[in-house]
Amino acid sequence: MSIHLANRMKTVKASEIREMLKVTQRPDVISFAGGLPAPELFPTAELGAITQHILEEEGSRALQYSTTEGHPPLREKIAARMNAKWGTQISANDVLITTGSQQGLDLTGKLFLDEGDTIICESPTYVGAISAWNVFKPRWVEVPTDDDGMNIEALEECLSRCDKVKFIYVIPNFQNPSGRTWSLNRRRRFMEIVNRRGIPLIEDNPYGELRFEGETLPALKSFDEGGWVISLGTFSKIFCPGLRIAWVVAEPPLYEKFVILKQGADLHTSTLNQMQVERFMAVHDLEENIRRITEVYRDRRDAMVRALENEMPESVRFSQPNGGLFLWVELPERLNARVVLRRCLELDVAFVPGGAFFPNGDHENTLRLNFSYMPADRITEGIHRIAMVVKDMLRWQVIEERLDKQAAIA
Amino acid sequence: MSIHLANRMKTVKASEIREMLKVTQRPDVISFAGGLPAPELFPTAELGAITQHILEEEGSRALQYSTTEGHPPLREKIAARMNAKWGTQISANDVLITTGSQQGLDLTGKLFLDEGDTIICESPTYVGAISAWNVFKPRWVEVPTDDDGMNIEALEECLSRCDKVKFIYVIPNFQNPSGRTWSLNRRRRFMEIVNRRGIPLIEDNPYGELRFEGETLPALKSFDEGGWVISLGTFSKIFCPGLRIAWVVAEPPLYEKFVILKQGADLHTSTLNQMQVERFMAVHDLEENIRRITEVYRDRRDAMVRALENEMPESVRFSQPNGGLFLWVELPERLNARVVLRRCLELDVAFVPGGAFFPNGDHENTLRLNFSYMPADRITEGIHRIAMVVKDMLRWQVIEERLDKQAAIA
Repeated sequence: MSIHLANRMKTVKASEIREMLKVTQRPDVISFAGGLPAPELFPTAELGAITQHILEEEGSRALQYSTTEGHPPLREKIAARMNAKWGTQISANDVLITTGSQQGLDLTGKLFLDEGDTIICESPTYVGAISAWNVFKPRWVEVPTDDDGMNIEALEECLSRCDKVKFIYVIPNFQNPSGRTWSLNRRRRFMEIVNRRGIPLIEDNPYGELRFEGETLPALKSFDEGGWVISLGTFSKIFCPGLRIAWVVAEPPLYEKFVILKQGADLHTSTLNQMQVERFMAVHDLEENIRRITEVYRDRRDAMVRALENEMPESVRFSQPNGGLFLWVELPERLNARVVLRRCLELDVAFVPGGAFFPNGDHENTLRLNFSYMPADRITEGIHRIAMVVKDMLRWQVIEERLDKQAAIA
Repeated sequence: MSIHLANRMKTVKASEIREMLKVTQRPDVISFAGGLPAPELFPTAELGAITQHILEEEGSRALQYSTTEGHPPLREKIAARMNAKWGTQISANDVLITTGSQQGLDLTGKLFLDEGDTIICESPTYVGAISAWNVFKPRWVEVPTDDDGMNIEALEECLSRCDKVKFIYVIPNFQNPSGRTWSLNRRRRFMEIVNRRGIPLIEDNPYGELRFEGETLPALKSFDEGGWVISLGTFSKIFCPGLRIAWVVAEPPLYEKFVILKQGADLHTSTLNQMQVERFMAVHDLEENIRRITEVYRDRRDAMVRALENEMPESVRFSQPNGGLFLWVELPERLNARVVLRRCLELDVAFVPGGAFFPNGDHENTLRLNFSYMPADRITEGIHRIAMVVKDMLRWQVIEERLDKQAAIA
């Protein structure tokens, strides 16, 4: 006998971002690769006092097993905030605490996906969702997406054509990786289809609160007429990611299924970490914390956009997101971002090649830049180095093409 | 359209223990149901100081994303302890930190199980493994198990007969639910088969360090000659469960697969919680903590055994475990433990009916009693009440049988 793994393991492979992050742990690397928040903004002193208080007052509860659904006062606060900020009408009973939003994705896959089922997604889409769901061997249908959101005609056409569509997955605010935010009109038209056809929708919103300009637009969940929308939210970007506190919002009967699946996955999320987040919200001002974060990230976004404008050749296009952590770059089609990356790593600069964000491959001329983690001066320097590599590669290509032509003439 | 779930959801159902625990949260209930550690033994004061230190010294690391494999110094300490205590020869590189051992079970299922694959297990076996793996729709083969461990002849017979055996799952120390510990001889004979046939083995060892009497016996992993054994360990029972810090030990190439699956499941386990456990081990004496726990649980085991001896009728059999958290009771075959439970709940006493621990059902006359959570006086009172119900039901059955006989004669 020997070891026989499940069939799904044939297609499961290591994530590119993960392999990247290994390199970028060296402090001398200018990393635009991860989706890392700026650690200097973490409220470490406040958390110290909070933890002391929790352990003194409720230590034996904070360190004990707790319910799968999560810490009730935290679920209350999440529901109240979502209703106030995003126009939803949910209750604490609809909120399940998860170990990071990644777990919300994993549980969603377990709940819905058999082999060969169809997932409809934006193009590009979040690489963590691709890796969470590829375990279930689905078929991915990428719907063309512009600066206002998913193309409605293309979506309709795809829904009419596609078999076994289990759900649609979208990130409507400051999308990872593109930085795009859906317009209000597009949200309405999209949700009209979801409600009319009755299709489960996964609305992932990790970045929505990090808005630099303009008004917050209502969540897709706020237009939900039939309990079709499952919302994913997280404290990773507005508080800190190391505690792994996130949530799923789902209505009955789906809610109970999520709970059963989470129980099988890890019983419950760290009791102490849940209480820490809840108490921070009770005794400090989370909104003020978000304002601090947003201001810093806005400056960094500005620094990156300025550097790209100053350094990149005209043939390079890039998005100018109004919030979030990421900016999307399209190189001239003949350049491969993986090759660009290889040269950039020699100059101690890292980013994620965009191909990883397309579940069906291609688009190798794109890349994702994170602007939240590095201070402005390193952003400027890092973009300068990437631009050097890009310009160099473009020059060599022109020369090579000329040589090819001369060879053809001769 | 409407919501279509994955096929696996047809067989996934809420766990009995979970439904039980809802009732037992009332403080007036004497609960022998959960596997809850005694919270008064949690080192809350020490953890307060530790957390303060971590946040002051390394706050921005403790609250940031971290690697999927886990906090390197914690992995080092786990490997060193296992080698010292359990006779293994593993390195930190073989250790993957998980969000509770439940996640180790979940990842194992993802790694190995296709629909219809066979799992070989003890009879009874851990209900959390049943619920983690039933998601993958396996076939369960329960091998008869006596007080020395799995029956070797029955195992051989089953391996010759069964198709698509993906792995064997066992808890060789103070098993949940039976309280049994495998003998040294049985461990050797069992591992001879595993090594000769080459079968992946999941060795789950959450209770092994809670030994009240006798010598620790070497882990099955210590007899592993081909990298067949995957070990699961946890801090839940020797430190505290609320932090959800556990681990999987696996050798290459399986280790890397576990890492990829964990990345898709929750990216990584709480950075802060990992650092808390690591620092506790660095500045305090975990072994002393375990000694304190063991002493208390030994007294409680004694109280429960004494009460069972004093109160239960002779037809009731029960195990006398040398460690762990659980004791196993067999009622006369005509009694159904679910019915006993229903009556006990009216008297504010709870336990778990044993049927839940047999993946293929049956054995409804058994039940599991936890002795770690309740102080001795409540244990005595609780067993008194259960015995009252059992004796009452037995009396009524005798009367009913007589009436039936009389009716048959008349």
